[in-house]
Amino acid sequence: MADLATCRPLTRDSVIEAHALIKPLVHLTPVLKNKTLNELASTPRHVASLTGTKWQGRTPAKPTLRLYFKCENLQRIGAFKARGAFHAIERLKLEPGWREGGGAQRGVVTHSSGNHAQALALAARESSIPAHIVMPSVSRPNKVAATKGYGAIVYSSGSTSVEREAVANEVIAATGARLVPPYDHPDIMLGQGTMGLEFQDQARDLLPAGKKDLDAIVTPCGGGGMLSGVALSCEGTGIRVYGSEPEYEGADDAKRGYETGKRVETVKGLTIADGLRTPVGVHPWGVIYERKLVSAMFAVSEDDILQATKLVFERFKLVIEPSAAVPLATALYNEDFRAMVEREAGEAGWDLGLVFSGGNIAMDGLVELFAAKQQS
Amino acid sequence: MADLATCRPLTRDSVIEAHALIKPLVHLTPVLKNKTLNELASTPRHVASLTGTKWQGRTPAKPTLRLYFKCENLQRIGAFKARGAFHAIERLKLEPGWREGGGAQRGVVTHSSGNHAQALALAARESSIPAHIVMPSVSRPNKVAATKGYGAIVYSSGSTSVEREAVANEVIAATGARLVPPYDHPDIMLGQGTMGLEFQDQARDLLPAGKKDLDAIVTPCGGGGMLSGVALSCEGTGIRVYGSEPEYEGADDAKRGYETGKRVETVKGLTIADGLRTPVGVHPWGVIYERKLVSAMFAVSEDDILQATKLVFERFKLVIEPSAAVPLATALYNEDFRAMVEREAGEAGWDLGLVFSGGNIAMDGLVELFAAKQQS
Repeated sequence: MADLATCRPLTRDSVIEAHALIKPLVHLTPVLKNKTLNELASTPRHVASLTGTKWQGRTPAKPTLRLYFKCENLQRIGAFKARGAFHAIERLKLEPGWREGGGAQRGVVTHSSGNHAQALALAARESSIPAHIVMPSVSRPNKVAATKGYGAIVYSSGSTSVEREAVANEVIAATGARLVPPYDHPDIMLGQGTMGLEFQDQARDLLPAGKKDLDAIVTPCGGGGMLSGVALSCEGTGIRVYGSEPEYEGADDAKRGYETGKRVETVKGLTIADGLRTPVGVHPWGVIYERKLVSAMFAVSEDDILQATKLVFERFKLVIEPSAAVPLATALYNEDFRAMVEREAGEAGWDLGLVFSGGNIAMDGLVELFAAKQQS
Repeated sequence: MADLATCRPLTRDSVIEAHALIKPLVHLTPVLKNKTLNELASTPRHVASLTGTKWQGRTPAKPTLRLYFKCENLQRIGAFKARGAFHAIERLKLEPGWREGGGAQRGVVTHSSGNHAQALALAARESSIPAHIVMPSVSRPNKVAATKGYGAIVYSSGSTSVEREAVANEVIAATGARLVPPYDHPDIMLGQGTMGLEFQDQARDLLPAGKKDLDAIVTPCGGGGMLSGVALSCEGTGIRVYGSEPEYEGADDAKRGYETGKRVETVKGLTIADGLRTPVGVHPWGVIYERKLVSAMFAVSEDDILQATKLVFERFKLVIEPSAAVPLATALYNEDFRAMVEREAGEAGWDLGLVFSGGNIAMDGLVELFAAKQQS
C-alpha cells in the first residue's frame, strides 16, 4: 500500500484524480431504472407487514421514490472492489522510489476471502506485479480457484483476523510485499469513490426534466471504504449520502457507532450479507462520522435482504449478492428511511441512487440461501 | 390473428417491415460478449467428460468460437415473445375492415401458460384491446398474477391442448375475439425474426477487424416461431442459422423431423426447458425444413442445460430461464456441433451468435431446479 504520507487528501478533487487514473482499467457500469420497483417503493407497505417489526402499530410511510441503480455487479471481478484495488496499485506505482527499490518485484499482499482478493489479484496481474493472497482455509473452493485464476499466489490461514494477519506478516517478512488492506486506507476509499462520480454523471441523463442531480445515494456499509468514498464524491454537490447495513447479530456496527458517537471495533455476526460482516475502519469512520459526510445510517433484516435480492433477480434479471441488496431493502422496507423521505421530500419525492455493489454469489450459495428460506 | 390471406410473404423484407412496425414498442436489447465463455468454448472438452454420452471414445473437437449473446431476457415481459405479440396486434390493426367491424372491442384470445400469455396481454393493453387468456389451472400462481397484472381477462382450463382449445373456442364464441396463436402464424414468425435483424446490426460493431457479419446464429426451438423468423432475417446474408433443442423425453422433435423429413406433431416430455416442450408448427416447418433456411438441428441434455444456465448466472450475472441456455449448451457441450465448427471454420474460427431467449424463472423455480441437481 502506498505510504500514508504520500496519499492524496480525502476530498472530492482527489476522487476525480483517482477516476482519471483508473478509468481506463475498470468498466463504466450501467445505471438502470425499473418501473415496477419505483411503483413498489412509492406504495405504502401493508399495515400487517409491519407486525412483529419495531414499526408495529405505526402508519406505513408514503414516500415517492424514483430509483436509479448503479450496477457494480457488472464491474470487473463482479464487484466495485476492482476500483479500490486498481487505484491502490496505480498509486503505488507513483510512489517515489517504489519501483527503483524493487517494489514491482516484491509485489503486494492482502488477506481476504472475498471480492478484494480477486480484485487485487487482477489489478496486480495487469501491472505485472506478484500478488500474495492469504485466504482462510474455510474459503469456498470457487473463490480460491478464481483468485488463483487471476495469477495470485494463495496462502492458507486460520479464519480469525489474528490468524490471517499472522500469515500475512510471514509473507511480508519473506517477500517484502506491500500490504494492500481491503478498505481502511485512503487509496482504497478514493478508488471506490470513483463509482459515486460516475453515478452522478450517468443519472443526470435519466432524471426527470428540470432535475439536475440525484437527491441522495444509499450504499452498503461493511468496512466503509465504498460508503466513505462515495460520500467524498458527493461532498459539496448537495447530494446526501446514506449507509445501509444488515442488523443481524450486530452487523449494524457503523449505525450503532454513528448513533453513540463511538466506532464499534469488532463484529462477529454471520449475516447472509457476507460482504458486510466487517467493522467500519478508522479512515472511513473519519469521513462517515467525524466529518459527517454521511447523513445517517440504516439497518435491515435478513428477510428484507433476501426479499430484495429476489426482486432484483426476478424484475431486473440480474444476479446480485445479498450484500448488494441492502440499499434496496432499505428503500423498500425500512420505515425510518421511508418516513424520512416522505417528510423531507413531500409529494415531489426523491430521485434516489442505490448501489448494486457486487454479483459474486455461486449458484450453489444462492440455492442454499433460498432453499433454507423456503423451509423456514 | 390477422387473416392468413392478408399476411406478408415470408421473406427477409417482410421481417424488415415488421421491425419498422414494432421498433418503437419493444426494447433494443443489448448484445454482450464474455471472454471467459469464449475461452471455455474454444477449449476442447476433457475426454472423461464424454464418458457416458453418445460421443464416448471420440476425440473432443477443437473449435475456435467467439460468442455473441442477444439478451432477450432483458426484453419487455422478460422474453422475445413480446416481439411476435406486438407484431400480431399491429398487423391486426392494419387488416382492412377489422377496426370498422368492431375488432378492437372484441379483442384477442390465446391459450398459454407462459411468456406468450404475458406478451399478448401487454401488447393488447397498449392498443386498448381486451385480451382473453386461457391458462391451465396448474399454471404457477405468479404467471397468472403477472398476466392479470397486464390487464388480461384470465380463464382457467385443463392442461391438455384439447382442453385448452375447447375453452378458447368458448371464449371466441362468446366474445368474437380473434385467436393469436403462440408461434404457428406468419405474423408471429416475422415479429420474432426482428430480433435476428437487430442481432446482425449490433454484432457488426463487436466483430474482429475485417469481419463483416456473424458466421452463424443458434436459437432455441420450441414451436419454431423464433427459429424460423431468425432464419428469414438471415436469408441471403450468408449467415447460417441453427436450431437447438433439449433431447430429454423427445423434446428434440424438430431435430428428429428434420433428419427424417417428416414433422413430428406431438411432444409430451417434461424437459426443464419448459418453453421448448411444444412440437414445431406447420408454418415454421415450411421455413426451417422445406425451404432449408435452417442448416441443421442439435440437441442437448438436461445436465448441459443446467450447467449452461449456471455459467450465465455466475459469469454474466444474468438470469436466464433454462430454455434460453440451450444454444450456449449446444456451443459448449454438443460434440457434433463443435466438430462441425472445427471442420468448417478451421483455425479462423466462427463468430457465433447465441440467443438468450428469456429470463422468466421465479427464484423458487430456480432453487427447485438446482436443489434437485445437488441432491442427485
